[in-house]
Amino acid sequence: MTHSNSGLRLGRRGFLATTAAAGGVAASADQVFAIESPALHQPGIITAQQPCAYFITFDLATTKRDEVVALLRRWTEAADALMAGVSVHGLADSGEIDGLKDRDLTITIGFGPGLFQKDGKDRYGLNTHRPEALADLPRFTGDQLVPARTGGDLCIQCCANDPQTTLHASRALTRLAYGVADPRWAQAGFLPSFGKGKTPRNLMGFKDGTINPDSQNPQSAGRYIWAADTDLPWMQGGSYLVSRIIRIALEHWDRTPVSFQEETMGREKQSGAPIGGHDEFEPLTLAQKDHDGNPVTAQNSHARLAAPEENGGAQILRRAYSYDNGLSFTAERWPPWRQGMEMDAGLLFMSWQQDPRTGFTRIFERMSKFDMMNQYTTHIGGGLFACPGRRKGGYIGQALFEA
Amino acid sequence: MTHSNSGLRLGRRGFLATTAAAGGVAASADQVFAIESPALHQPGIITAQQPCAYFITFDLATTKRDEVVALLRRWTEAADALMAGVSVHGLADSGEIDGLKDRDLTITIGFGPGLFQKDGKDRYGLNTHRPEALADLPRFTGDQLVPARTGGDLCIQCCANDPQTTLHASRALTRLAYGVADPRWAQAGFLPSFGKGKTPRNLMGFKDGTINPDSQNPQSAGRYIWAADTDLPWMQGGSYLVSRIIRIALEHWDRTPVSFQEETMGREKQSGAPIGGHDEFEPLTLAQKDHDGNPVTAQNSHARLAAPEENGGAQILRRAYSYDNGLSFTAERWPPWRQGMEMDAGLLFMSWQQDPRTGFTRIFERMSKFDMMNQYTTHIGGGLFACPGRRKGGYIGQALFEA
Repeated sequence: MTHSNSGLRLGRRGFLATTAAAGGVAASADQVFAIESPALHQPGIITAQQPCAYFITFDLATTKRDEVVALLRRWTEAADALMAGVSVHGLADSGEIDGLKDRDLTITIGFGPGLFQKDGKDRYGLNTHRPEALADLPRFTGDQLVPARTGGDLCIQCCANDPQTTLHASRALTRLAYGVADPRWAQAGFLPSFGKGKTPRNLMGFKDGTINPDSQNPQSAGRYIWAADTDLPWMQGGSYLVSRIIRIALEHWDRTPVSFQEETMGREKQSGAPIGGHDEFEPLTLAQKDHDGNPVTAQNSHARLAAPEENGGAQILRRAYSYDNGLSFTAERWPPWRQGMEMDAGLLFMSWQQDPRTGFTRIFERMSKFDMMNQYTTHIGGGLFACPGRRKGGYIGQALFEA
Repeated sequence: MTHSNSGLRLGRRGFLATTAAAGGVAASADQVFAIESPALHQPGIITAQQPCAYFITFDLATTKRDEVVALLRRWTEAADALMAGVSVHGLADSGEIDGLKDRDLTITIGFGPGLFQKDGKDRYGLNTHRPEALADLPRFTGDQLVPARTGGDLCIQCCANDPQTTLHASRALTRLAYGVADPRWAQAGFLPSFGKGKTPRNLMGFKDGTINPDSQNPQSAGRYIWAADTDLPWMQGGSYLVSRIIRIALEHWDRTPVSFQEETMGREKQSGAPIGGHDEFEPLTLAQKDHDGNPVTAQNSHARLAAPEENGGAQILRRAYSYDNGLSFTAERWPPWRQGMEMDAGLLFMSWQQDPRTGFTRIFERMSKFDMMNQYTTHIGGGLFACPGRRKGGYIGQALFEA
């Protein structure tokens, strides 16, 4: 795996060099931070996806701003250590990846609206620095967000090649939060290993993520993924995450003829090509009509409604994983309205964008109303987070707390 | 991955040759079955563990014996096809592994006590053929089995290198059961990739499964894993599965000093060696005493209580996976009796044995009372299943239904 564009991955030597002299990041961070340095991107955003993800959110339990700062210092130091494959300073390692060769890992940390304001209260004196882009999401048609799987004041995304690596990292960071932030919800995700450069299929059997902004192109990433130049200084180099747990009624989907699946998706199942097309990466057939004069890619198809052409050019970086939580009792939302134990499985949708108002909300507002796919999908949880950039040697969020 | 000892894995050509002429397994199976043939083992028992597992159980919803037989025919045919990497006859493939290179897969099918008797009723006229070894398990001290994650009349274990492969197989088999058997509970599991021949670490950070009967030695497997010669004819070549979902209070474990973890486990954490030993595979230090005259491996340690020497030579094949279901609210059973959102993670314990009465029950009866590990572990679900052998060309369970 290569992470040439991940921005913040430190080698073992780099990490040790940063921390060894000062006996910890805290002192050295301030010194380095004082020198003006460019904002770095957190890893796990435009990094090539690895097969395993673990996403966890936290509720802050403290009223003290200093304790939040201290937690972010600990998290930053620990995340750097974990990504470098070394032990976390001052924490007995839980040991479950000792001897594991592949520990490749990214850790991404974000701030939910609750860091700024909760129950009408400016908890840590940060509310004047809340970005406009971090506006609460509206309720979308069909939303069935379960509180126990929704929200969080802080979030951590861990991605790796081995599920034990993501769990180990999340667990270490959770321990460092004891007494300051309580775990709220977590969701593991996975991607099948289709091989490098191949678009993986999601649990619906379709290729997922074909149309994405080119994250490796700085111009495209700068326009769609990274916070705008006009955003607050502490968000420079950062990105906004809209996460959604999207349960898919796979039992219903599986009993749907493939032809209707394809009409719903607006793509062919096997090839991933647009309806009537041949290749996965050719443009959608948005203008083409059939002999009756109807569009070959239905107006209420998923691919069309998600397409930039239909959303004033809006684009978000979809970096989703499949999830599987076994079975749970459910009532399907659409005919045949079956009730029973069904797969609690679907998509851990992770979307990264410059501004959720012009990204996810802009696109999903229409999709939530019109997408034929909604017969099969239900948003049951998720959250909104600002994942800041970082200055070299600084802790994540330092520019916010020192603004 | 090699499966040289898995017994029933068919190559693509072998599967096609079996089914092509007869246009389906049903007709050919009976013909072949009529000829006396040796019992074959199902795969997924002594097969080398793969990183991903999906275990699902079902409640039979039919009162008709013929429908159960027809389901087992469908499952057998479909399992053979899935393991051979070809499409399931008569079922639109859900498509999510189309193009996936690594589809290596084992499928293991078993029968719970409910197939024979439920609510005092002999549902399918099979109760006289219920093996004595399939006696209901007793309640063990500390059991907190949740009905929604416990039991089942039928079970399927799918193991593969990719989580999408296990999910795909389970999903196909579930579809084939619609109207006849309802999914009851499911649990995915995973193993970290420590490399071939290395004992993987579980989420407690310890190596798990060091002492196991040698499953590749026919004499050892014949004595501990496969049904006894004196068992019922339909169970010849089969094995009994005791499955348990063991939630581990990892938050509590992580705050326990490693020295006490090691005393609890009866092994050293880093090396996996017995207490006072040097190598993972050397014998436990059961007889050795310290200078005070106390055993170096504590009497209530996990490894000692599980050891054959302490259980009249009893052995079971432990073939466990870790599981992770995110967070859920829990109250820890032991001091500090913390309550809150904690990791619903631990062990999907899968044990295979000749007879649960002299295997799991014999060993766990004492462990459930005395094991120090019980401070951290809670059995929250599971099941008991007879996984029969199979005759060439026959469907799984045919010898039971024709007994």
